[in-house]
Amino acid sequence: MKVIVIGGVAAGPKAASRINRLCAEAEVTIIEKGELLSYAGCGLPYYISGQVKDSKELMSTPVGTVRDSAFFKNVKNANVLNHTEATAIHRKQKTVTVKNRAGETQDLPYDKLVLATGAESAVPPIPGVELGNIYNLKDLHDADAIKATLAEHKAVNAVIVGGGLIGVEVAEAFHEMGCRISIVEFLPQILGMMDPEMAVLVEKHFEAKGVKILTSTRVTEFAGNGRVEKVITDQGELPADLVLLATGVRPAAKLAQDAGLEIGPTRAIAVTDRMQTSDPDIYAVGDCAEKKNMITGKAAYVPLGSTANKEGRVAANAICGVEDSFPGILGSAICKVFEYSVARTGLSEKEARDAGYDVVTCLAPAPDKPHFMPGARLLFFKLIADRTTRKLLGAQATGPGGADRRIDIAAMALTAGMTVDQLANADLVYAPPFSPAVDNIITAANILRNKIEGRMDGITPGEVLTMLERREDFTLLDVRSPAEREQMRIDGTVDIPLGALRGRLDEIDRSKPVVAFCKISLRGYEAALILKKAGFSDVKVMDGGILMWPGKLIKG
Amino acid sequence: MKVIVIGGVAAGPKAASRINRLCAEAEVTIIEKGELLSYAGCGLPYYISGQVKDSKELMSTPVGTVRDSAFFKNVKNANVLNHTEATAIHRKQKTVTVKNRAGETQDLPYDKLVLATGAESAVPPIPGVELGNIYNLKDLHDADAIKATLAEHKAVNAVIVGGGLIGVEVAEAFHEMGCRISIVEFLPQILGMMDPEMAVLVEKHFEAKGVKILTSTRVTEFAGNGRVEKVITDQGELPADLVLLATGVRPAAKLAQDAGLEIGPTRAIAVTDRMQTSDPDIYAVGDCAEKKNMITGKAAYVPLGSTANKEGRVAANAICGVEDSFPGILGSAICKVFEYSVARTGLSEKEARDAGYDVVTCLAPAPDKPHFMPGARLLFFKLIADRTTRKLLGAQATGPGGADRRIDIAAMALTAGMTVDQLANADLVYAPPFSPAVDNIITAANILRNKIEGRMDGITPGEVLTMLERREDFTLLDVRSPAEREQMRIDGTVDIPLGALRGRLDEIDRSKPVVAFCKISLRGYEAALILKKAGFSDVKVMDGGILMWPGKLIKG
Repeated sequence: MKVIVIGGVAAGPKAASRINRLCAEAEVTIIEKGELLSYAGCGLPYYISGQVKDSKELMSTPVGTVRDSAFFKNVKNANVLNHTEATAIHRKQKTVTVKNRAGETQDLPYDKLVLATGAESAVPPIPGVELGNIYNLKDLHDADAIKATLAEHKAVNAVIVGGGLIGVEVAEAFHEMGCRISIVEFLPQILGMMDPEMAVLVEKHFEAKGVKILTSTRVTEFAGNGRVEKVITDQGELPADLVLLATGVRPAAKLAQDAGLEIGPTRAIAVTDRMQTSDPDIYAVGDCAEKKNMITGKAAYVPLGSTANKEGRVAANAICGVEDSFPGILGSAICKVFEYSVARTGLSEKEARDAGYDVVTCLAPAPDKPHFMPGARLLFFKLIADRTTRKLLGAQATGPGGADRRIDIAAMALTAGMTVDQLANADLVYAPPFSPAVDNIITAANILRNKIEGRMDGITPGEVLTMLERREDFTLLDVRSPAEREQMRIDGTVDIPLGALRGRLDEIDRSKPVVAFCKISLRGYEAALILKKAGFSDVKVMDGGILMWPGKLIKG
Repeated sequence: MKVIVIGGVAAGPKAASRINRLCAEAEVTIIEKGELLSYAGCGLPYYISGQVKDSKELMSTPVGTVRDSAFFKNVKNANVLNHTEATAIHRKQKTVTVKNRAGETQDLPYDKLVLATGAESAVPPIPGVELGNIYNLKDLHDADAIKATLAEHKAVNAVIVGGGLIGVEVAEAFHEMGCRISIVEFLPQILGMMDPEMAVLVEKHFEAKGVKILTSTRVTEFAGNGRVEKVITDQGELPADLVLLATGVRPAAKLAQDAGLEIGPTRAIAVTDRMQTSDPDIYAVGDCAEKKNMITGKAAYVPLGSTANKEGRVAANAICGVEDSFPGILGSAICKVFEYSVARTGLSEKEARDAGYDVVTCLAPAPDKPHFMPGARLLFFKLIADRTTRKLLGAQATGPGGADRRIDIAAMALTAGMTVDQLANADLVYAPPFSPAVDNIITAANILRNKIEGRMDGITPGEVLTMLERREDFTLLDVRSPAEREQMRIDGTVDIPLGALRGRLDEIDRSKPVVAFCKISLRGYEAALILKKAGFSDVKVMDGGILMWPGKLIKG
């Protein structure tokens, strides 16, 4: 059996190695356009920042063996043709035309073909985009060029166009290298994977680090003499010694499309759950292949190295007759932004509403360990569920606290189709150095249960801000202690600490709606219950408390 | 509705607060033997070590309000009788006899009664156990007494009797305080919750920190003049200025037993999944109540604050007519031992075998992030599954890497009854600062799939060590590089690096069984496949590689 794998970075080598392990008789050839094989593209931002000292580390095994052609031949028993491009697939003849560095072409026969052609950077058609010092970050050559530019300048003005995952990861790397950084994002928020109230927390953290965030801003031109000098936007100009274009990637599906293979609605190669394309002898894996969202069952495109590895294994199994299938993805994603983690899984609130669910959400900011432990760090947490079925739909987290762990717990709950009730009773590990006795995600699940069962009427801080701005007639009830109010407060509140509330109900106008809050709105919830018991009819709790207030805070 | 809650530490106050929130008409009274309410007993080791500076922090809300009687009255609308002991339950009359500090007794009527009487330390009947400076760690008074003893002595010789969770947590606290520490454990390993090959890694870490571990050692006497001076064991004597008895806890179920309530096989109070005892008006929650293991369906006793909180909520819901049930526990547990985390969930290998499963296990040591990231730390990981159903049964992890996250992922998989295949395809969050592209738990799940499908015959390092000790005739094949062997190696191996193996097959005796390994046995697995392809018939892979070798290592 002859197997050709086109693409030597992640999913391709994975499929090749696994095929070799499963089928003694297979003869596997990897075709790679570039020089490098199986390197960790996700590590490039950390190579730019200098955390990863030597680029060789990105293409080595954990014990330091470089994964070159000899390695693949000797260890994985796969032939590698690098500096070789696959230019056409002839499905009837079952051959692939390849062209080497010298321009020589040949047709290679296959029994099974694996497409792992990856993704390519979307270069926006902005005037001046061809100027020097404007980079993508698609491979090690780009990273080396960026490093050289950084080394050449002092106090570099760096502009990052696009506030998605790559944009924010590189922003941190540029910051480490001493750059003055602006992130220009065309949408009203960075990190479109997050709901707006979570993204704004990340934007604030960036700004606290001196990174300028320009949202709802469109780049109209790159100007400069030979190399970029300024970035012109519809909101003004930015000086620029260096520009990173991080405006997203798209599946590299042209070879498949030219061969008449079915392309999906996301413009990636359509595949079955065995990674088979519309031609049963051709498989597609990794960033060129379309994914299925496990919750909605709909096509999705979330190119990630973690998914690529799983798909490579599934395709190899299919080719070698081992039963397996890929269940799809949840859109789980994470990135680091200075001291913050930013993570999500499942559907965002907007995605859930668009998909027609009866959405209920909660915001639960809290320390990620018992408050008395010195290592406790604040975690902002959001859960999204369906009111009718009580099933979890999505989770988002950010802040200095441990987001990865809670989002992975949520991902597992989503995989299993769990309700918020099952999640609330999950037996998670507990000890003070690791988590509070009632973990953040369990608290959030319990808030959702209270909301679904009608015990708690939530209102988002954003909605409350709008009510204040519209000068609506309501009581915003702050039940925190005077000491807490000293530190920060919202203008225009009625202030009664929770412990005194039962005795001071007369101070609250019964004819007006009441919105109660505290630091995180646990006491706000208790206050609302006290008011309801006392006969107040319109009482809401502000989700997430003052910690998630998007408006102005008065301090001191 | 009159509700009496006996016990004011964790599950009791939780139930009381929730009842107050759910039922406007409930009149809730908390009876507490001691002075203190709702304090974080799990935080005591960190109070001893000084990480928690002020004991008030252990009994405060996150914003610093001390949870005293006034707090419970004003905020939670619950009456508190502290320094008051419940001495008898009269089920026919529905009253509880209580006795206050002055010795006055009265009978309090109840409609519903919640028992949250907790656990008590098991004090072993060892001669001399009544000597001074021998402590339990059941409450803040003990912690204060221990702190006073530590302050009084210089270079304290501390002996901890019992190597369970509390023993190891306090060992670290004593180390922080500059003590010379011995842990004396009657069983052949510390941390009985872990399988032996995992526990031994923790023992080695303790020893590297200078903590003496004496397993299979029985204390026969505490000797001293007024206060303890030495601990006499069946293996010799230990000098001792301070002894901590950490020989386990048992449910405080006497009050329930005297009232004729059903006691379960674990000697805890038998309860339904709504936390109801054999008397439908009496509930039991927290450390005095029996648990159910979710996997086996059998009675279990794992007293933890995390479970107590969930049970308190479920009992409150039941009392107030809100539908809910507690599904049981997985035996999830975690502790910190210096730089190591130690965590487990589900069944241990032994428990799984005892329960009659067709057990398959794997050991997967690997960095918890891509090896090129500076923050990558080694994590030793073990998965346990059922060969027939392919369902996950348990997971264990230790080492400097992130154990909590992976064990919680496993806990969720266990809750859902997932197979190793579902686990292997889980869409976990991925970015280099957080995890490798193929997460440790996914690698482990894939190893189990390979084993279940007969592609990999594993043998544990312990079994290989026994074979060597018995001088069995087999080839122990080390496929690591010469540079790796320089650092550490096992005596008596045949050494052929994986990359050279295909060309050097002649060097291996085909008539003998072969056991292949590398650092973590990924290359060992590939070597085994190469040998099998080449016609070798008896080839096994040593699980976990040299990193989990329990025997002697030759270094340099």
